[in-house]
Amino acid sequence: MGDWDPALYTRFEAQRTRPAVELLARVPLDAADVREAVDLGCGPGNSTALVAARYPGAAVTGIDRSPAMIEAARQRLPGLRFEPADIAAWAPQRPPQLIFANAALQWLPDQEQQLQRLFGLLAPGGVLAVQVPDNLDEPSHRLMRETAAAGPWAALIGDAHALRAPRLAAERIYDLLAPAAEAVDVWHTVYRHPMPSARAIVDWLRSTGLRPFLDPLDAAGREAFVAAYEARIAAAYPPRADGQRLLAFPRLFHVSRRRR
Amino acid sequence: MGDWDPALYTRFEAQRTRPAVELLARVPLDAADVREAVDLGCGPGNSTALVAARYPGAAVTGIDRSPAMIEAARQRLPGLRFEPADIAAWAPQRPPQLIFANAALQWLPDQEQQLQRLFGLLAPGGVLAVQVPDNLDEPSHRLMRETAAAGPWAALIGDAHALRAPRLAAERIYDLLAPAAEAVDVWHTVYRHPMPSARAIVDWLRSTGLRPFLDPLDAAGREAFVAAYEARIAAAYPPRADGQRLLAFPRLFHVSRRRR
Repeated sequence: MGDWDPALYTRFEAQRTRPAVELLARVPLDAADVREAVDLGCGPGNSTALVAARYPGAAVTGIDRSPAMIEAARQRLPGLRFEPADIAAWAPQRPPQLIFANAALQWLPDQEQQLQRLFGLLAPGGVLAVQVPDNLDEPSHRLMRETAAAGPWAALIGDAHALRAPRLAAERIYDLLAPAAEAVDVWHTVYRHPMPSARAIVDWLRSTGLRPFLDPLDAAGREAFVAAYEARIAAAYPPRADGQRLLAFPRLFHVSRRRR
Repeated sequence: MGDWDPALYTRFEAQRTRPAVELLARVPLDAADVREAVDLGCGPGNSTALVAARYPGAAVTGIDRSPAMIEAARQRLPGLRFEPADIAAWAPQRPPQLIFANAALQWLPDQEQQLQRLFGLLAPGGVLAVQVPDNLDEPSHRLMRETAAAGPWAALIGDAHALRAPRLAAERIYDLLAPAAEAVDVWHTVYRHPMPSARAIVDWLRSTGLRPFLDPLDAAGREAFVAAYEARIAAAYPPRADGQRLLAFPRLFHVSRRRR
């Protein structure tokens, strides 16, 4: 895939940051507990800033695969450390007390193995805090696949859907982590974001889920794909009583503490 | 129904208080904005204490239909005001800036009308913050109905399920409140509470959802009903990898601010 677009990604920052705030609020560590914290898939640094604000005494490192995102994060937060790396192969120099992964692990293959690997990298008593979008069955994502299959671009796009690993069930995550954990807290939230137009919904998704569908196309193909997709989105998310459209956005959270 | 049991209700207070904390965190009012706040369905006062802590300058009143709950709340929080009243007929003396209703409105008839009525009682710019359990389709509640229908108590219990109003869809709540609101924030969370045994799950539900099923029975009938129900719960919530059972508990939240 091409590199990410930090400006487009940041446009919906308030809505994207909310799950990070709620995830962090459930981390059962006091400021004195955390010397090293890592923000995996830090993007332009919005979640990293939250972690650093809650743990001001900790050395906080942001990790992201995208050089553009790392560059944006460094410019935004010159006091923190950001390093380009692939999460699947990443390991810390010292075991951290907190590994924070907001909207990042859904892109990894081998979800089960990676979860257990990351949990095992923590210091004793450390916490793994994870949020992943769970929207593959939502109209927003179903209609990406329908648009891809129904247009002249079908062969070019191929099985873009396969880039996303299927979500692990909450019970499965619990079973994977609980035997080595003091506590595992799993929950699932569906937000409903009021959006001013179908175009706004499409713009949100262009910066993330739509990328594997658009990357194989040329400029004209992208424009035609987006127009066809937007027409489907307009029908699937009708205006509510005040003219806004509600984008339902499910997300799965888990916070697990290693035994001390 | 008989009166509520504050001691049994309080046993799972940490799990019950969490949604109240998360609901309150989303109320977009500063301390200086709130002069009057009301906690509808305050129970033994756990949610009222949270509201008072966030709005220390406000006059906070807790309202509950149960005299036992009002008495427990008064003993626990002698500095706050608690009044017995039926929410469906309640109205404030002065328009409050905050009406907080955590796990209370699900017992009301005429949900749509009540929501609009309560929203209309607010001062301009005021906030209605609501959380209701959404577990009627969960095994925990489906098995109450199955146990009731399958035993010698079927006629005695009757249609206990009808005591609970059906949940309003998130989109419907948005449509009801958005035309008079600055913003409506609706979300839905499924918690997964680790519980040490099937009996613990039953004990939780005895203090709330199971009450309409047990109230018509005598002591022996209750004991037999609870035993039959517990056997079904044990099968529906099998032990996880660490021996705990996960009680999935869906809850619907909304926070709406009146136009100024």
